[in-house]
Amino acid sequence: MSGETNRLLGLAREISANPDPRELDVIASTGEQVTIGLLAIALQAEGVKARSYTGAQVSIVTDDAFSKARIKRIDEERIRADLNAGTVVVVAGFQGVDEEGNITTLGRGGSDTSGVALAAALKADECLIYTDVDGVYTTDPRIEPDARRLHTVTFEEMLEMASLGSKVLQIRSVEFAGKYKVPLRVLSSLTDPLMPIEEEAASGTLITFEEDNKMEQAIISGIAFNRDEAKITVTGVPDRPGIAYAILGPVSDANIDVDMIIQNAGMNGMTDFSFTVHRNEYQAALDVLNKQVKAHIKATDIHGDNRICKVSMVGVGMRTHAGIASKMFRTLSEEGINIQMISTSEIKISVVIDEKYMELAVRALHKAFDLDQPS
Amino acid sequence: MSGETNRLLGLAREISANPDPRELDVIASTGEQVTIGLLAIALQAEGVKARSYTGAQVSIVTDDAFSKARIKRIDEERIRADLNAGTVVVVAGFQGVDEEGNITTLGRGGSDTSGVALAAALKADECLIYTDVDGVYTTDPRIEPDARRLHTVTFEEMLEMASLGSKVLQIRSVEFAGKYKVPLRVLSSLTDPLMPIEEEAASGTLITFEEDNKMEQAIISGIAFNRDEAKITVTGVPDRPGIAYAILGPVSDANIDVDMIIQNAGMNGMTDFSFTVHRNEYQAALDVLNKQVKAHIKATDIHGDNRICKVSMVGVGMRTHAGIASKMFRTLSEEGINIQMISTSEIKISVVIDEKYMELAVRALHKAFDLDQPS
Repeated sequence: MSGETNRLLGLAREISANPDPRELDVIASTGEQVTIGLLAIALQAEGVKARSYTGAQVSIVTDDAFSKARIKRIDEERIRADLNAGTVVVVAGFQGVDEEGNITTLGRGGSDTSGVALAAALKADECLIYTDVDGVYTTDPRIEPDARRLHTVTFEEMLEMASLGSKVLQIRSVEFAGKYKVPLRVLSSLTDPLMPIEEEAASGTLITFEEDNKMEQAIISGIAFNRDEAKITVTGVPDRPGIAYAILGPVSDANIDVDMIIQNAGMNGMTDFSFTVHRNEYQAALDVLNKQVKAHIKATDIHGDNRICKVSMVGVGMRTHAGIASKMFRTLSEEGINIQMISTSEIKISVVIDEKYMELAVRALHKAFDLDQPS
Repeated sequence: MSGETNRLLGLAREISANPDPRELDVIASTGEQVTIGLLAIALQAEGVKARSYTGAQVSIVTDDAFSKARIKRIDEERIRADLNAGTVVVVAGFQGVDEEGNITTLGRGGSDTSGVALAAALKADECLIYTDVDGVYTTDPRIEPDARRLHTVTFEEMLEMASLGSKVLQIRSVEFAGKYKVPLRVLSSLTDPLMPIEEEAASGTLITFEEDNKMEQAIISGIAFNRDEAKITVTGVPDRPGIAYAILGPVSDANIDVDMIIQNAGMNGMTDFSFTVHRNEYQAALDVLNKQVKAHIKATDIHGDNRICKVSMVGVGMRTHAGIASKMFRTLSEEGINIQMISTSEIKISVVIDEKYMELAVRALHKAFDLDQPS
């Protein structure tokens, strides 16, 4: 059914340049409705009792933010009655109804989020999310062939990895799982259909909330990377209160999202200020700074680079292990890779480097931290 | 959106030879859901306040006969609130929900029926049905150029005309209108968009329940015809109780619908028995009679003709005017047209004639009964 919803929404945009979001959701929700009907029929054709439900039918109640609604609650009674009767329940993802019964859609990542919300409402032991990969890896196997599938990863690590460009799960569904403490398992929809159910249920990667289980594991869970970024540096800036807002306020007003932000301690009352933006917005951000900011804050220079990438090491083990950062920097140094920016959080260290070194950096770090070895 | 629903149902039939009707309705109902969203957006683009509702959202409650459900009731409160606020309400036709909230579709003629049901629930003054013709005519203008549009026609006349092959309205919606006494107006969706609303509202044909208004009108409202029929005659049948069932029972068991049925008073304990079937089922009906019936009832002969047609005059005026039948027969006789079968009801006279005379018969009767003259 791929592309079908976009085709329908395209019809709406042919009619009106500014179509009513409420009506767009009426239209957009039909794609999943067709899909649940077809899936229920396919299950029945295999001899499995099955029944489909739209978001409205099982009261997936959301707020009324059409096209990006957030789930508030689910009435799980009807689903539970079916499950108790041995019926497979097929619920339309990506959709719900607001308190008035208007049809809503959840927007990007909405289908995974629906699954997690159902698992939360039903207090399920686990929410299994079938994707086109068989789990979360220590890094992208296309770059490092020795990348290893993780059996478990903590919720916080997954959140960092997802936000760093690991495309396994939409960050929104991970956040939702975190909020309701739903254990998520990512596994492949392409496994052998004859695999015993117990074996399949133990495959993939479990995203867990029990850090205790991690004590025996590696300090670092994985290496994420992202080459969609560009960096901009403003030099010779007066080091005074309000300077960060003076620089980033106009950028934000231009609807440009900023990722890493770094301000060095200054000397002689002057400092340098750097940040990264999505590569597509690099030129727009430079324009904003040159036109609206540079003269105003009396900056010496504004320059940037859109051939950079960000490489991050993620692991809850960092909390209890010192020396991770210095080992990372040493590893990169030994490969002759210059670090342009550094940013850290409690469970993550990110560096910005020249994009041509990305694969090299990922492989070197993967090996240095023994990520190819079973933990 | 034409053809879209058939395409989706085709997908279901690719998956399963015998798909669950409940799930087919989940799928089939999405077509109208897309349409109401698009229509609401189109109205809004014209500056009109509009809002779409699925059958579920305004509680069009039906029985649970999936794919051919019947409407039981409608909760009109939400619609009325919108109407009171000056909002155009766009409700999905052809669909509803059963008492359990399962999605149902109404089957053939369902969209018109939804409109009539809404008008009944809202106690509307009139239900306007926009079609590709501008009303109900005294006969088909393609056959009789002098055919005249009727300003009003009674519910019973419309029912006879619809069942006789006049394709203006689905008979089911007319029956529904009759049950709830909803005045229906058939009018064209292709009229000048700049036509004043009062003028448009008085155009088309009003299907009314007030026969009093008809006193000044013509005795005959219209002439319907149907060339999809074939006749079969069983001769030399013993004139005894149960003979009609002995002949038609096996035909009915073979799922062949019978239309006109005529049995003449017999002579010498023998009679002839004739009936008509759809032309597509002519051969099947003959086969049933020859194999299962002929020997059993000791009939002399079974023969038929699939080149016949049925021409009917319809009018509530027949109730109070004598001589209509004889004038009809005389008119046909004057044109040299032989009448093969005759069947009458309180407001209708039907004759079966050779199909080659169909146009001639329609034109001659149209003129003889002054249907081309404004009443």
